[in-house]
Amino acid sequence: MNLKDLIRDVPDFPEPGILFKDITPLLKAPAAFRYVIDRFADHYRNRPVDVILGIEARGFLFAAPLALQLGKPLVPVRKKGKLPFTTHSVEYALEYGEAAVEVHTDAVAPGERVLLVDDVLATGGTLAAGAQLIEAVGGQVAGLAVLIELVDLHGRDLLGSHDLLSLVQYP
Amino acid sequence: MNLKDLIRDVPDFPEPGILFKDITPLLKAPAAFRYVIDRFADHYRNRPVDVILGIEARGFLFAAPLALQLGKPLVPVRKKGKLPFTTHSVEYALEYGEAAVEVHTDAVAPGERVLLVDDVLATGGTLAAGAQLIEAVGGQVAGLAVLIELVDLHGRDLLGSHDLLSLVQYP
Repeated sequence: MNLKDLIRDVPDFPEPGILFKDITPLLKAPAAFRYVIDRFADHYRNRPVDVILGIEARGFLFAAPLALQLGKPLVPVRKKGKLPFTTHSVEYALEYGEAAVEVHTDAVAPGERVLLVDDVLATGGTLAAGAQLIEAVGGQVAGLAVLIELVDLHGRDLLGSHDLLSLVQYP
Repeated sequence: MNLKDLIRDVPDFPEPGILFKDITPLLKAPAAFRYVIDRFADHYRNRPVDVILGIEARGFLFAAPLALQLGKPLVPVRKKGKLPFTTHSVEYALEYGEAAVEVHTDAVAPGERVLLVDDVLATGGTLAAGAQLIEAVGGQVAGLAVLIELVDLHGRDLLGSHDLLSLVQYP
């Protein structure tokens, strides 16, 4: 299946000069969306993963079905101020701007192996912040899964030696 | 299964006087999360639904697995400024504040029957705005599915005669 046929380029979003990868055509194609979740599940089914962590907001779209398919707990990482219970927080730089992400302090038990899921790996800031969050609550990063990797932004370099799975690569 | 055992009360979030229903314990319980998606799927499997629409952000957690389970297209409704392609927009009042939601103009074809999915029905503002969006792009509301209904806020009254499924009710 050629997933790139279902990923649309939108120029100058969210800012001039950014070529945005729009995944909404893929979400509207049930066979393709199913294919993506199956590929993630195939990769991680026999690897040691205790918890699936989805990064707000588009990461939720992939993390939730994957957690159900693997029968693992799902933990949301959210933008600052969105989670109601006590949280850990990490600030980071985005491809365009700055942000902070948070996780509940009771989300991951010490020693649990956590798979982080997001839609796109760009500069890697969000996923690196997610990995820091996991370590802040005592967990271990078991892997990182994204639909799209923007290779020329070198996000991989921020993510150390963690297992990183991307299903589609662009320059 | 008693889902209420996995929904945590957090007082004074996001504002003083609001008793927030925190679903993160439920998301961490794979059997319960699976049960929720199965109940939604059971209810809608034999009803006429063409498209599953998930409302950012927590609605994504339920809409994505449900769309996969029913084999239907998934469409995200997002906060203003988050969707990259051309959009329709509806402004609405929240339980605490104001907001606008958007959907891509090509998300729903004329006549398609759309099931809206969110985590909580409170005052109904978000779901009513979602229903308006569907009608603005030519679709029909086939139903509304939420995990939690806060009955005393009378959100149901805003939603007309649409089929509304809530799995857990609180006063």
